[in-house]
Amino acid sequence: MREIRPEHLDDLARGAGILGTGGGGDPYIGRLLAQRAMLDHGPVTVVGIDEVPADATVVAISGMGAPTVSLEKIPAGTEEVTALRALERYLGRAATHLVPIEIGGLNSMTPFIAAARTGLPVVDGDAMGRAFPEAQMVLPGLIGVTVAPMAVADDKGNTLVVESVSNLWAERLARSACVEMGCSVSCADTVMRGDQLAAGLVPATLTLAEDLGRTVREARAAHADPVAAAASVLNGVRLLTGKVVDVVRRTSGGFARGRAVLEGAGGDAGRTLELSFQNEHLLARRDGTVVATTPDLICVLDTDGGEPVTTESLRYGLRVTVLGVPCDPRWLTPGGLELAGPRYFGYDCDHVPLPAC
Amino acid sequence: MREIRPEHLDDLARGAGILGTGGGGDPYIGRLLAQRAMLDHGPVTVVGIDEVPADATVVAISGMGAPTVSLEKIPAGTEEVTALRALERYLGRAATHLVPIEIGGLNSMTPFIAAARTGLPVVDGDAMGRAFPEAQMVLPGLIGVTVAPMAVADDKGNTLVVESVSNLWAERLARSACVEMGCSVSCADTVMRGDQLAAGLVPATLTLAEDLGRTVREARAAHADPVAAAASVLNGVRLLTGKVVDVVRRTSGGFARGRAVLEGAGGDAGRTLELSFQNEHLLARRDGTVVATTPDLICVLDTDGGEPVTTESLRYGLRVTVLGVPCDPRWLTPGGLELAGPRYFGYDCDHVPLPAC
Repeated sequence: MREIRPEHLDDLARGAGILGTGGGGDPYIGRLLAQRAMLDHGPVTVVGIDEVPADATVVAISGMGAPTVSLEKIPAGTEEVTALRALERYLGRAATHLVPIEIGGLNSMTPFIAAARTGLPVVDGDAMGRAFPEAQMVLPGLIGVTVAPMAVADDKGNTLVVESVSNLWAERLARSACVEMGCSVSCADTVMRGDQLAAGLVPATLTLAEDLGRTVREARAAHADPVAAAASVLNGVRLLTGKVVDVVRRTSGGFARGRAVLEGAGGDAGRTLELSFQNEHLLARRDGTVVATTPDLICVLDTDGGEPVTTESLRYGLRVTVLGVPCDPRWLTPGGLELAGPRYFGYDCDHVPLPAC
Repeated sequence: MREIRPEHLDDLARGAGILGTGGGGDPYIGRLLAQRAMLDHGPVTVVGIDEVPADATVVAISGMGAPTVSLEKIPAGTEEVTALRALERYLGRAATHLVPIEIGGLNSMTPFIAAARTGLPVVDGDAMGRAFPEAQMVLPGLIGVTVAPMAVADDKGNTLVVESVSNLWAERLARSACVEMGCSVSCADTVMRGDQLAAGLVPATLTLAEDLGRTVREARAAHADPVAAAASVLNGVRLLTGKVVDVVRRTSGGFARGRAVLEGAGGDAGRTLELSFQNEHLLARRDGTVVATTPDLICVLDTDGGEPVTTESLRYGLRVTVLGVPCDPRWLTPGGLELAGPRYFGYDCDHVPLPAC
């Protein structure tokens, strides 16, 4: 158990940006809202999975929608609690703990907004160990925990509670409501008992994200290599260091799809790496051979500063390093690959293990 | 209190078709589903508004979507009860009575499907006294009863419960879910206490619809004038008898919009009547002068048989009689006209009283 204060969120946001693998949304607005809520209501307690009682009611809090919308239509900051209360009313019982649905990007922050306002503790872990774009892509689904009942709230005070026959239907219904509500909403869902957390969550990812963010910051301050420092925290392999020489992008089916070509530099001179992305980086081909795929993490970092590079900020000339980071092993089971493997995203290849170097 | 058995629904459906003013959906599939539910589970008790205890929990049951879809994608027949149960769970209490949201068209039948399956009584009345296309166009809204919490259920078993900041938002959110769910769903909403029914409902409209349907049938069987018989039951005025000579139709903004021109015959020879419709007939101009507008009922009947003519079945050569029927007087208050007057539907005119003849 430890206390998270506003100043801790800067490192956490940087680490979450890297774990967002190019997507997951910029934590910027979420961090400001969480910091504001903490300044108004006090710090937030974070507890380890093993500190949660077996009969606890744990609720995942997240934002859904287009992250770009939340930068212009600033959330009211009350949506998370509105969603939580609607879910609790439907459940007929109160939540005892909150948890992030994903550690990557914006949604690392949203539980802290609700936690500061309600006084509830946040569990150190998340349901993905990274970021994914759809609500059904969560590990608790593999142990029979359903996304629904799922509460969705907008900035105006409208809410809805979805009960669905599958996690895919929960995603579809919440997504269409999200669009009607203005493309930026908060969700409370994926209700777990305390004794389901060990099997359902990736543990200690809040701590990982904060460690990662702090390590990068400190390496940069010490004029050390921040990318090497990040790779060491993540147990990641360097796939290529070079510069972006081509980017093709289009928006289709609700995704920002595209690919980017990188030319190697230094020790990687003469090599190329092609990244394919749909919100997140999902596939990396080096010299024509697939070397990394979803659900493993493909993290693109600014080579000089170690800051995460999102798919929308890829542009010609950017000097970046691509890291491959092993995903939680449960994603590599048949059920995990069905939810978030390369074929789900329409790529005609199977998952390949990351190279040794 | 009286019992409604399957054989009563034929007259009720005919009357509801006339009260649907050209829209509201063909009661055909709804009648078959209600009759099937009654054959399986027994007859349904209908009670008068004055027989409902003051502390009763009355829930409106309806279908939402494109009536044309329900003719091809036949409802499972369980959607109404699924929606009711989701609403009850959210309310934390059970419904004691059901009621139609509208007496016009298809939704005169839907409460009977749920009532037969649950054993709950149906209240003799409805929230419109006719049919309207949007969920917020209900008289209970004028006394502060909200449409939400509103439960929506599809044929697959998905449900959602909407809680909204306005009735218009309840309509928007339920409508977008309806589209995602396949354009044919059931709703449970507009929760009223027993002591709100007198102010919130149009009384005895189930009895009216059944009387109307039976009167038309009996007049036809007796070779009397079924349209005159209908006008007498409805206290309606004959606006024109003639034939359809022109129809223009388009689908836009989710409405079947258009207009039809009728040429008078017999005593009306030399006169013309132009009907404007958006799902329902909303405006009638006779010889260029507006003689009837929403929220009054503009009912188009087959002149020979007295059967209702829907807006989508208007076609060249059809011999019809147009009746103007006074709406419930609460629709003519400023609040009522704001919800469902001609200006809400985009017509640049105010409501005019029906002519004396």
